[in-house]
Amino acid sequence: MKTINIGLAGFGTVGTGVVKILQSQKKELKEKTGIVLNLKRIVDIDTNSDRGVKLDKSVIISNNIKDIVEDKEIDIVVELIGGVTAAKQLITGAIKNGKHIVTANKALLSECAESIFSGCKDNNLLINFEASVCGGIPVLKALKEGLVANKITSIYGIVNGTANFILTQMSLYCKSFEDALKEAQIKGFAEANPAFDIEGKDSAHKLAALATLAYGITVTFKDIYCEGITEISPLDLKFAHKLEYEIKLLAIAKLHNTNLDLRVHPTLIPKHSILANTLFENNAVYINGDNVGPLMFYGKGAGMMPTASAVVSDIADIASKIINDNCSFSQSYHYCKQELSINPMFALKTKYYLRIATVDKTYVLSNISKILSDHQVSIASLLQTETNEQGNAIIVIMTHNALEKSVMNAVQAINKLSCVKGKVLAIRVEDNM
Amino acid sequence: MKTINIGLAGFGTVGTGVVKILQSQKKELKEKTGIVLNLKRIVDIDTNSDRGVKLDKSVIISNNIKDIVEDKEIDIVVELIGGVTAAKQLITGAIKNGKHIVTANKALLSECAESIFSGCKDNNLLINFEASVCGGIPVLKALKEGLVANKITSIYGIVNGTANFILTQMSLYCKSFEDALKEAQIKGFAEANPAFDIEGKDSAHKLAALATLAYGITVTFKDIYCEGITEISPLDLKFAHKLEYEIKLLAIAKLHNTNLDLRVHPTLIPKHSILANTLFENNAVYINGDNVGPLMFYGKGAGMMPTASAVVSDIADIASKIINDNCSFSQSYHYCKQELSINPMFALKTKYYLRIATVDKTYVLSNISKILSDHQVSIASLLQTETNEQGNAIIVIMTHNALEKSVMNAVQAINKLSCVKGKVLAIRVEDNM
Repeated sequence: MKTINIGLAGFGTVGTGVVKILQSQKKELKEKTGIVLNLKRIVDIDTNSDRGVKLDKSVIISNNIKDIVEDKEIDIVVELIGGVTAAKQLITGAIKNGKHIVTANKALLSECAESIFSGCKDNNLLINFEASVCGGIPVLKALKEGLVANKITSIYGIVNGTANFILTQMSLYCKSFEDALKEAQIKGFAEANPAFDIEGKDSAHKLAALATLAYGITVTFKDIYCEGITEISPLDLKFAHKLEYEIKLLAIAKLHNTNLDLRVHPTLIPKHSILANTLFENNAVYINGDNVGPLMFYGKGAGMMPTASAVVSDIADIASKIINDNCSFSQSYHYCKQELSINPMFALKTKYYLRIATVDKTYVLSNISKILSDHQVSIASLLQTETNEQGNAIIVIMTHNALEKSVMNAVQAINKLSCVKGKVLAIRVEDNM
Repeated sequence: MKTINIGLAGFGTVGTGVVKILQSQKKELKEKTGIVLNLKRIVDIDTNSDRGVKLDKSVIISNNIKDIVEDKEIDIVVELIGGVTAAKQLITGAIKNGKHIVTANKALLSECAESIFSGCKDNNLLINFEASVCGGIPVLKALKEGLVANKITSIYGIVNGTANFILTQMSLYCKSFEDALKEAQIKGFAEANPAFDIEGKDSAHKLAALATLAYGITVTFKDIYCEGITEISPLDLKFAHKLEYEIKLLAIAKLHNTNLDLRVHPTLIPKHSILANTLFENNAVYINGDNVGPLMFYGKGAGMMPTASAVVSDIADIASKIINDNCSFSQSYHYCKQELSINPMFALKTKYYLRIATVDKTYVLSNISKILSDHQVSIASLLQTETNEQGNAIIVIMTHNALEKSVMNAVQAINKLSCVKGKVLAIRVEDNM
């Protein structure tokens, strides 16, 4: 039986999970793949701490990246360092030394995709990155292989567990954003500094990976419009429910002929859709293929063992291609030269939810509706709360399809009205799911 | 660029879909796989009807299976004939002539798995059958590859669109079984003779394919306990909702150490679970892996283009392995010699829902509860309807975990009570999702 040697860089949570699986599923992996997946080296700054796993004596542990990339016997480098600088150095070294790559590093990929992919392509090396999106859910493999017979017309992803946990708390228990965030931090679903998750950046990184595989173009972070959930209040969820909607932070890719929407923002989606029923820290990716129709992939988007499960399946995938001398770069990444251009955000056309706090005067509504009408934004429905003690009311407007540019201009004009309190909140709507 | 020649047997609905995709996605498939997928021959009894596709002049259409299996240039035989007799003849011929196989035929596989798989194994041929389970949802590929690092601890599948459509109509609109079935027939989701779908046999065939890949053992139809949905009434759905449950026809595989449950039956599952939110004709498979945790794959389980999408991805998968000389049988089917035995149904231990129609007399409940207690079946909760005009009432009992054998014996004894009208309905409960 043939052996593939693995070098693991990063012996943290996920790295430990990978070691655990390679140990516990040793016999099964051999039977299923017909290959011995041999962990030869581990590199980490910390070579001493007890991670709760007992390494085989044959595993060499050290603290220098070079030990892995320059070891001639190593076939696959597994990058689980995280961050950009050291990880990039490792991957550059791996490419230079002809090693195939498995990584879970969405930040690195979405910032350096161009150079990494072209490096792999030029050297006929494989790169797999299933664990970078939605933990253990095999959605990248599905895009590459299971859905190969489809043009992907849209992707709607709940790809950040932290943001979804917070919105679920706000939706089910009417918690404030702050309380929901605290709850997420207590339960370990949010970092001490949660900015990356709640501002949508993590979702944008994952969308870059999804779109790269779905459309065969190299998408990076700066191609993606990105807006977080910090402005959402429990009141918005209450209004959304009244209108038969739920609010989710979505990563969206949508194909219009040769144009592609790429955007991350809070979104109103139909309350009874299966995507809206993705609760708490769970992830789900809802994909439309022109032949297969709508599909959804659901599961835990993070955590030691789910993420390690994806890393090991990536290792097994590359190992079986190495054994069979099948290392064409296109196998790991659809490098079709698709002629796609990315839609500028201002050209988006969709429905909008507008939440406006106003003083309760008779002229208010006519002022607001005149501005909307002046900007060719047409009202589909309107809700208004009772006036509160301060004499203020909330107006919620659902628009018909309108241009992003027009809506944003209208919102700016409405913000300037003296009868309007605070700023208007606009949330985009997606109905087709 | 290399060419793989395809012989298609069965030019019906799905076959036509396959031809459409091979034509419409020709350029994209070439770019994504690096291979020309060339449809060389089609065989069908009917060689004349217009299917709404214009075949390339190079495609040879004829009505004899031999034309495909004996054509030396054909690499992959695609079996879309359906049924068992002719399909088996085709596949036997294909194996004899060293052709790889793609099939959507769950009936054939679940009845002749042993001989087909061993034939493929002995001749080092690949066989893919993604389209046999849940149409275009790439769940078999996920079990084989994406979840390779996992022991699959359970599978809960809503794998029959007809049955799910009927139960959804009963659940959402309180329709009777008969009315819901009529609706399904009108909408084209049920055959004129729906027995195969509503009695659970189709689900059992699909469970055989899922379990074969998940556990590396050859599962056939006769290994699976099978019970349909014909006894379910809208009243049961009403009671289930009161108890915070939904009723679904599930195909279940569940691993207990070295024993495997394999069963298809109506099941109470938590009303707010994501699986319970799989509505109408949609399919979903909820899978637990020991490392990845719970996952769900959702989508359209049938139809021309979704099924054709799966067939074409199977073709592309085998084609890329042929090109790379990577045709080891284990690549298409985990032939691990797992030492698993299938649990006899009487040994099942779970919770049960019991619906009992009785006359409204004071002694009724004490008679029933004595029988349950005599059989070591303990009551967890109890609901009772108002007495109707005929002086009858419905009692619904939820049990604690109990042995199937004990429950069935108790049900038989309760059926004999003179105060009980008609037969007791017992529905098994699954809580862990």
